Amino acid sequence: MTRTILASATKELVMGFDQPFVMIGERINPTGRKLFSKELKERNYWRVKKEVLAQVAAGAQMLDVNVGVPLADEPAIMAEVIPLIQSITDAPLCIDSSIIEALESGLSVYKGRALVNSTTAEEDVMERVLPLVKKYDACVVAISNDDTGISEDPDVRFEVAKRIVNRASDYGIKPEDIIVDPLVMPIGAVNTAGKDVFRLLGRLRNELKVNTTCGASNVSFGLPNRHAINNAFLPMLAGAGMTSAIVNPLHEGLVQAVRAGDVLAGNDPNCRQWIKANRVPAPEGENGGRGGRGGRRGRRRRG
Amino acid sequence: MTRTILASATKELVMGFDQPFVMIGERINPTGRKLFSKELKERNYWRVKKEVLAQVAAGAQMLDVNVGVPLADEPAIMAEVIPLIQSITDAPLCIDSSIIEALESGLSVYKGRALVNSTTAEEDVMERVLPLVKKYDACVVAISNDDTGISEDPDVRFEVAKRIVNRASDYGIKPEDIIVDPLVMPIGAVNTAGKDVFRLLGRLRNELKVNTTCGASNVSFGLPNRHAINNAFLPMLAGAGMTSAIVNPLHEGLVQAVRAGDVLAGNDPNCRQWIKANRVPAPEGENGGRGGRGGRRGRRRRG
Repeated sequence: MTRTILASATKELVMGFDQPFVMIGERINPTGRKLFSKELKERNYWRVKKEVLAQVAAGAQMLDVNVGVPLADEPAIMAEVIPLIQSITDAPLCIDSSIIEALESGLSVYKGRALVNSTTAEEDVMERVLPLVKKYDACVVAISNDDTGISEDPDVRFEVAKRIVNRASDYGIKPEDIIVDPLVMPIGAVNTAGKDVFRLLGRLRNELKVNTTCGASNVSFGLPNRHAINNAFLPMLAGAGMTSAIVNPLHEGLVQAVRAGDVLAGNDPNCRQWIKANRVPAPEGENGGRGGRGGRRGRRRRG
Repeated sequence: MTRTILASATKELVMGFDQPFVMIGERINPTGRKLFSKELKERNYWRVKKEVLAQVAAGAQMLDVNVGVPLADEPAIMAEVIPLIQSITDAPLCIDSSIIEALESGLSVYKGRALVNSTTAEEDVMERVLPLVKKYDACVVAISNDDTGISEDPDVRFEVAKRIVNRASDYGIKPEDIIVDPLVMPIGAVNTAGKDVFRLLGRLRNELKVNTTCGASNVSFGLPNRHAINNAFLPMLAGAGMTSAIVNPLHEGLVQAVRAGDVLAGNDPNCRQWIKANRVPAPEGENGGRGGRGGRRGRRRRG
């Protein structure tokens, strides 16, 4: 059974086919956020802290950290932000940058076992990222595109993922330390995007035996009421074998949909997590009394 | 491609692997409802009408009709209720009774092609129900249990379903006119209930090539926050190949979850239904003006 072990200094997180679905919080990312970008450039990290606490409180088990701001010193910012985040949460982190120096800068100060986001099958990217992943004993997100771009054919994307897994093995990186992103297309543009990824997940799980992730919200790009699409998509992905996703855990209903997916995929033994998270006060009038709202700890004892 | 054709006097409904998921409204059923039972016994059908209109308005494409009240004249009530319902909706109906005379009484007055709910693989049930299905050229729900009860082993349930399909064929009933209920166990009791039914759906679709249905809410029996579990389950079922379910379309978020599942399963061509159902007014301030709430029909024209 494939097990990807991620860790902070004090907490281990296991990703696997029989494990709860891992939500990787996407909110530490200034892309398209003017104020956040400005603050990062000024080395003002209050919003980073806020996003850390909010996402962990909402239920994210891991956090993606992207501090990419044009013209800013990204490696220096990464080196400051990673220890700051690790000082306020024990959730393992995903170090996310397209700049190799920022990845290394983050990895060099990270305590635990990080996830590197990401490599593709592009030759020059693999050549730079994979040695780093090996050097820091990290795990890596492998995105299924190569120098020719993204194929709409899921079987081509499977072959691309396989190529990354094989190349990584040349560097001494094991398949269980690679988390494949099969790439989710916007379903408004590609009507088979859902079916394609469900089938691809089956192949990745049964043939390559790797864990998987994706930017789940991409599926609803351009459609109205995106949250409802995303919240239906996540349990479907879990049912098809996906083991994690990069998501906004603050979106209404999302965490609940994922945790319900865990129950239904059989990855919440005895529904323990679900029952704990959804415990309700004893209904009014139970045990013959009114005002049962005090019953948070269970049924009220008789006087 | 398997196609189950159901119909009222004026409307045809196609169930199939590439069709939108069919929601069969479950609300016309007095089980556990004292007032409803009393009213039916008195041949007072105002609540039946109310449930018809509410469920169809919510999005149910079909309605289950169960008028089983102990000591009432069920065949007589069925004979009155079916024409009444058909006079106010063109949704096809599912005639639901454990009493053979009530099934026949409903079928004899039904206009169109009904669904009979249900037969099991019990010998005496098949012997009584299948000839009726054939006589009225109806379709039938086939529940995967037999004289020995319900097996927890999904492969046994598959064999039981196959037995019904084979027996029905002896009566001249085609597989595409049989909708198999693979039986969903409460996941609080059977932790693999979800996985079991997903795998079983694959077999039913690929080997028996039949359409399927279930009482979806059974999965969450005994758990807190049942709606959230049910709303995640329905898209997962659709993703695994289920083609209909008996549901309460009035439950919050349920219809939306099912329609999102259609989009993601690739059964909403060009997302047309989704876009139509979720069309939003132009946001305030678009086109330079405030008070965009009047924009229900689209963008406001300039003065």
